[in-house]
Amino acid sequence: LLLTGSALVKAQPTEEEIVAELREKAMSNTLAYDILETLTTEVGARMAGTPQDAMAVEWGVKKFKELGFDKVWTEPVTFKTWIRAQEAAVLVSPYPHKIRITGLGFTVPTPLEGIEAEIVHFKTLQDLIDSPADSAKGKIVFISQKMERFRDGRGYGPVVKARGQGAVEAAKKGALAIVIRSIGTDSHRLPHTGMMRYKKGVKKIPAAAMSNPDADLLERILARKKPVKMNLKVYSHDGPEYTSYNVIGEMTGSEYPDEKVVIGGHLDSWDLGTGAVDDGAGVAITMAAAKIIGDSKYRPKRTVRVVLFANEEQGLIGARAYAAKHKVDLDNHVTGAESDFGAGKIYAFASNVAEDNLPVVKKMAELMKPLGIEYVDNKAGPGPDLIPMYSLGMSVFSLRQDGTDYFDLHHTEDDTLDKVVPENLSQNTAAYVVFAYIAANSEQKISRGITKTH
Amino acid sequence: LLLTGSALVKAQPTEEEIVAELREKAMSNTLAYDILETLTTEVGARMAGTPQDAMAVEWGVKKFKELGFDKVWTEPVTFKTWIRAQEAAVLVSPYPHKIRITGLGFTVPTPLEGIEAEIVHFKTLQDLIDSPADSAKGKIVFISQKMERFRDGRGYGPVVKARGQGAVEAAKKGALAIVIRSIGTDSHRLPHTGMMRYKKGVKKIPAAAMSNPDADLLERILARKKPVKMNLKVYSHDGPEYTSYNVIGEMTGSEYPDEKVVIGGHLDSWDLGTGAVDDGAGVAITMAAAKIIGDSKYRPKRTVRVVLFANEEQGLIGARAYAAKHKVDLDNHVTGAESDFGAGKIYAFASNVAEDNLPVVKKMAELMKPLGIEYVDNKAGPGPDLIPMYSLGMSVFSLRQDGTDYFDLHHTEDDTLDKVVPENLSQNTAAYVVFAYIAANSEQKISRGITKTH
Ligand SMILES: [Zn+2]
Ligand SMILES: [Zn+2]
Ligand SMILES: [Zn+2]
Ligand SMILES: [Zn+2]
Repeated sequence: LLLTGSALVKAQPTEEEIVAELREKAMSNTLAYDILETLTTEVGARMAGTPQDAMAVEWGVKKFKELGFDKVWTEPVTFKTWIRAQEAAVLVSPYPHKIRITGLGFTVPTPLEGIEAEIVHFKTLQDLIDSPADSAKGKIVFISQKMERFRDGRGYGPVVKARGQGAVEAAKKGALAIVIRSIGTDSHRLPHTGMMRYKKGVKKIPAAAMSNPDADLLERILARKKPVKMNLKVYSHDGPEYTSYNVIGEMTGSEYPDEKVVIGGHLDSWDLGTGAVDDGAGVAITMAAAKIIGDSKYRPKRTVRVVLFANEEQGLIGARAYAAKHKVDLDNHVTGAESDFGAGKIYAFASNVAEDNLPVVKKMAELMKPLGIEYVDNKAGPGPDLIPMYSLGMSVFSLRQDGTDYFDLHHTEDDTLDKVVPENLSQNTAAYVVFAYIAANSEQKISRGITKTH
Repeated sequence: LLLTGSALVKAQPTEEEIVAELREKAMSNTLAYDILETLTTEVGARMAGTPQDAMAVEWGVKKFKELGFDKVWTEPVTFKTWIRAQEAAVLVSPYPHKIRITGLGFTVPTPLEGIEAEIVHFKTLQDLIDSPADSAKGKIVFISQKMERFRDGRGYGPVVKARGQGAVEAAKKGALAIVIRSIGTDSHRLPHTGMMRYKKGVKKIPAAAMSNPDADLLERILARKKPVKMNLKVYSHDGPEYTSYNVIGEMTGSEYPDEKVVIGGHLDSWDLGTGAVDDGAGVAITMAAAKIIGDSKYRPKRTVRVVLFANEEQGLIGARAYAAKHKVDLDNHVTGAESDFGAGKIYAFASNVAEDNLPVVKKMAELMKPLGIEYVDNKAGPGPDLIPMYSLGMSVFSLRQDGTDYFDLHHTEDDTLDKVVPENLSQNTAAYVVFAYIAANSEQKISRGITKTH
């Protein structure tokens, strides 16, 4: 009897044993890196609305199928596009110097001959806002505030407003154009792009970002107190409407197939790099995690759904389309986590679930520990593409990656595969395996506020 | 008597005490960095033959005078020029991708529409040389060999031949153009320029280098075994003859003013960066060292001459002009050392002097030790701009800098001031102070082979 009992135990391992084994499997191979290698090599850059956007969708469908996902489909996402054309800036005086710039997303173009004007320097967006009404009249505004480096990327928030609102505030002061210091932590001659916004009733002026070393030089030249003139050429412009797709793959749950844990990343990237860290990594990590769970003999009770969101970069367009379509199914979206902070190791995780679900979170925390991941608190925010669903009431988790070097690469030409350490992707995959398996398999149905049980 | 004796000792310190004090003075300020800041800010990039070449000469003369050098003058250097114009490369198939390239120095241009052709891949220059006669017929040659990183830069030699000879060897095999992987150790989307050569009787084809991440991508795409096509546009072209100047400043010796110790760097840079590490650093270090020696109450016996060589990058043109003019004065060129390996700390030094001079070298070695610098041997080679004088028989020293990251920056847009650590320049300055003071002040006149004494 004892022997038989022991044999039975071996035949049906505990959930903890199952997840530990899948976690080790994730750690011991380079599946996520291999997926990322194909995306960055076979598709490359994939800005929303470009031919490579369509190639990426095709890649996503094919890759899900190759990996053996049970269900694979696409959902249309329609949006306005923006087309990058030639862009260049030169210092005209005190001496000729090529300034490395990139147009900000949805900037209007300059005239063909460019905009040639004196530079007026503000240290921060707030300084520009606080300046007199005609402080930038007939000039090109330069904002020089530099982003600070932190593991959790908290240097981003305080400075990224200059990118988003700079053009509007500069136009209000009579500026002809704005060129900000890149929102990034590196010191390479590679500017960082990203979205900017116009405002009804305020003149649309061209907006670009320059590399950090160029901004350093410009500050030093400006410190000489002689007039500094720049010629800015930006030919990038709005494009036609375009329909892309959210690409979705599922590993079906064994008991409650309609209930799902959503993981994923965004499939689009900016055009400058090949989107290896933003967000090829997130795509690859979550596809790999679901694949490893799906291949297990012991499928979790609920479905693991991987969503590769369309057009995150230009305003969470795919995420909004997803929420609009799936809000009727909100109750079946048990919880979720998006991977969209690069390719660094995960060092912490947080939850945002009903108090009653915390024992499930504790189980996760135990299984995360061998990965060097500590539980933080129950105040997690959503990854960008889960914001719309979170706003509707979906519970979320946040698996926090070391982002120390993320903003060196983010939205630059340098966002390429060589920056990714395969072992770090494996660690991320292992963490998503733990999270998704435990969440999908729990007795309790995880939720944000009111706990429901089956 | 005793007291008087002691007072006398204080009034006339030993050579060792003098040099130690000057060394500490060099370590305790940022003179070299401050000089470099003005060069990179007020002149910027200064490719031979450009308007900034002339600005750099003007800067050199002005800076020597400001620093209080006893004699300041220029010597003309005439050479052929090359003008960089627009350059761009795109992958046409399997999908559009912008490849970051830079034309190699003195490349011929492509037609306006570019050269569009299939890529043929060779791992090394030798593989290209060893390939069949028509191996590259109608194609663009890609050489993918990657430079290895070492503190002493020894990874450069084995791969830089692909840059120098690649175009000739590719043309021999029928190629339309050549694009090599950059000769550099970084992983940024910033290609490395540098000189290439043509050969009489072999067709001149355009030659460029691509960034390391682009080369990585291209290798991965080529591994898919489908045809890969590139369009290469290089509009850079030869320019007119130009006359620049070697800029020379001296701190006159107290006993043998005609005899000199020569230190210096090259004043020109490539056009992509602002020449902070190549070779603004060398210019600044040696100017600062001579300034500190010149300011001493205890001038050394011989003159310390700082030469800022014109046009090193395009073939040691300034160095050859210097040697042609000064070979009649060779015997008075006691010894020398050029600083042209970036802005890293010096970790070792070597001499190339007559055996009889070794006691002087030993004295230097003792004074270098507190700087963390070890003596190596008596087999030093010359810095590039001292090659012509060395060939004529001048003795030389080699103050060896840590070049671990030198080839990350060398000949790229990233060669900018932010890469320079002021304290490292101070350490370099201190080492040049020790070297130049001891060499200029020795009882023995240092020489290469036969030792002469006064
Ligand atoms: Zn992202
Ligand atoms: Zn992004
Ligand atoms: Zn050099
Ligand atoms: Zn050089």
